[in-house]
Amino acid sequence: MSDTVTLTLEELETLSLEVLSRHGFDEAHAGAITRSVVAAQRDECHSHGVYRLLGCIETLQKGGVSPDAAPEISRAASGIVRADARQGCSLLAFERARPALIDAASTNGVALLALNNAFHFSALWPEVESLAETGLVALAMTPSHAFVAPAGGHAPLLGTNPIAFSWPRPDDAPFTFDFATSVVARGEIELHRRAGKAIPEGWAVDPDGHSTRDPERALEGAMLTFGGYKGSALSIMIELLAGPLIGDVLGHETQPAGTDGKGRPWHGELILAIDPRSLLGDAMERHLQHAEALFDGVLGQGARLPSQRRHAARRRSRERGVTIPETLYHELDALRQV
Amino acid sequence: MSDTVTLTLEELETLSLEVLSRHGFDEAHAGAITRSVVAAQRDECHSHGVYRLLGCIETLQKGGVSPDAAPEISRAASGIVRADARQGCSLLAFERARPALIDAASTNGVALLALNNAFHFSALWPEVESLAETGLVALAMTPSHAFVAPAGGHAPLLGTNPIAFSWPRPDDAPFTFDFATSVVARGEIELHRRAGKAIPEGWAVDPDGHSTRDPERALEGAMLTFGGYKGSALSIMIELLAGPLIGDVLGHETQPAGTDGKGRPWHGELILAIDPRSLLGDAMERHLQHAEALFDGVLGQGARLPSQRRHAARRRSRERGVTIPETLYHELDALRQV
Repeated sequence: MSDTVTLTLEELETLSLEVLSRHGFDEAHAGAITRSVVAAQRDECHSHGVYRLLGCIETLQKGGVSPDAAPEISRAASGIVRADARQGCSLLAFERARPALIDAASTNGVALLALNNAFHFSALWPEVESLAETGLVALAMTPSHAFVAPAGGHAPLLGTNPIAFSWPRPDDAPFTFDFATSVVARGEIELHRRAGKAIPEGWAVDPDGHSTRDPERALEGAMLTFGGYKGSALSIMIELLAGPLIGDVLGHETQPAGTDGKGRPWHGELILAIDPRSLLGDAMERHLQHAEALFDGVLGQGARLPSQRRHAARRRSRERGVTIPETLYHELDALRQV
Repeated sequence: MSDTVTLTLEELETLSLEVLSRHGFDEAHAGAITRSVVAAQRDECHSHGVYRLLGCIETLQKGGVSPDAAPEISRAASGIVRADARQGCSLLAFERARPALIDAASTNGVALLALNNAFHFSALWPEVESLAETGLVALAMTPSHAFVAPAGGHAPLLGTNPIAFSWPRPDDAPFTFDFATSVVARGEIELHRRAGKAIPEGWAVDPDGHSTRDPERALEGAMLTFGGYKGSALSIMIELLAGPLIGDVLGHETQPAGTDGKGRPWHGELILAIDPRSLLGDAMERHLQHAEALFDGVLGQGARLPSQRRHAARRRSRERGVTIPETLYHELDALRQV
């Protein structure tokens, strides 16, 4: 086993804040980014944990994210909150728009947050879960750079387009899921290529649209959506809702920040919030309790709830801290001293 | 090829209205049901076409649907419309609530229709498409009787839980999809059993939770969701949103109407409507046009849009009428004369 370093959540938070501040992120952005990556690391979602700070700093150095943009929050209609991230990170824009979204949902029963023009790298579940913790039901989605072919196609057009959902539970952490609509993350294919291993059937097609198990050919071709034409339809829906519906771009119109300064990483995110009390009034507690029968039905047959493993990791991390690879720790530690 | 009968859309409509009226559905319900099954037949969605009238009459005779319930429409909050179908068919409740939903979406930017206590047998796409034809973006979902196991489980808990989405297009019929979150319809497994054919791997598990290709064992066990744990998570979301969130039941709490009068087929449906103009104002036309780049990207690589085949069938049916099996025609013709 490779060497690791164990840190308390407070130590991890300090490390993240110092790395971000040292490279120019203002206090507000450093705080919002830190809350997201520390939450992911705490829940053992390693791919959205503090390792992402490396990408944040790289994107900043390439001009792909504003380190001090103040998000502009406005109300377009009684049920519509807008947040213009102004090429800053999506996370601060969400945090600043969140109170207005909660207010709009409580007043109207349902509300949308249209978050525009944002650099986006984070997991969506901390956002929907934070809304469910206030008693709302929440759904979030965002497009991403185009690596995925539509069902029946052969060329990258769609992003890996994640969708996340959270539901408040009376006596437990919210029921939450968050998944990409691609079969796997692109990084999985890259890991297979580096290891010289074939990828499973159904992950990707080569540039001619033929199914391939060769990771090189897959990276030249396109990844596939999960669940065939159904996952492809969902992915298209996500592009439309978190793109043109909110006046923002499609996944294939974005590019990661490049050293030539020509990348256009910014795009939109859509968050829907529903207030159960508006629908159910005094019967809300009874119906939320009723929903538990569904979770009991899943657990009772030995199946797992989507958020279960993450919530167990959360309890462990709070007690024992988090463990990250020593190499990652040294990279981050060096970044805070540069 | 088996014998068929070709009817004009008007003839099909008259046949449907006469069958339903003859058995006691009032004019309003007969009209709403007819509009749905004729639209499905016109679009060559045979499984939701006029063949469904047989099930409607059977359900009526078993006391599973009120033939003359007047839906009660109310507003729970500025963005929430409620429709109590009072054990009548969902279709009339939707039609009666539709103007209030459109008004609420236009006023607030986003609105929800909570449709309760309904007998539901129809495709969801005619409902979301009818909203997109007025310029709204719409999403609909409903639970159904429990035939599907959650990912990692082995027993029926979830319905086949369909989800449908529709998006207005400037110069074309709306982009629309509508699919069950089960891998296939339960009827597909029954067809394999009757034909003595094995089912493909991944459709179902036996009562011990093992993957099975035996249709008998599959029907004793449980169907699976599409897309593994991701489809399972979506299916759970649909149960929560179109069940407890709107004060209605979960799929496993419903049963088809039975001859003993003990079935409880009624359940909920949720429809979300978003007004692009509230979000985009005068820039709406430009952004809807921009969305066409995504559809062009799908078609340009030889892939198909979800609604494409259905819309082509619609054009054919309008010109040449619809063709149904002669046996079905005779069954329906007999039912209008009983």
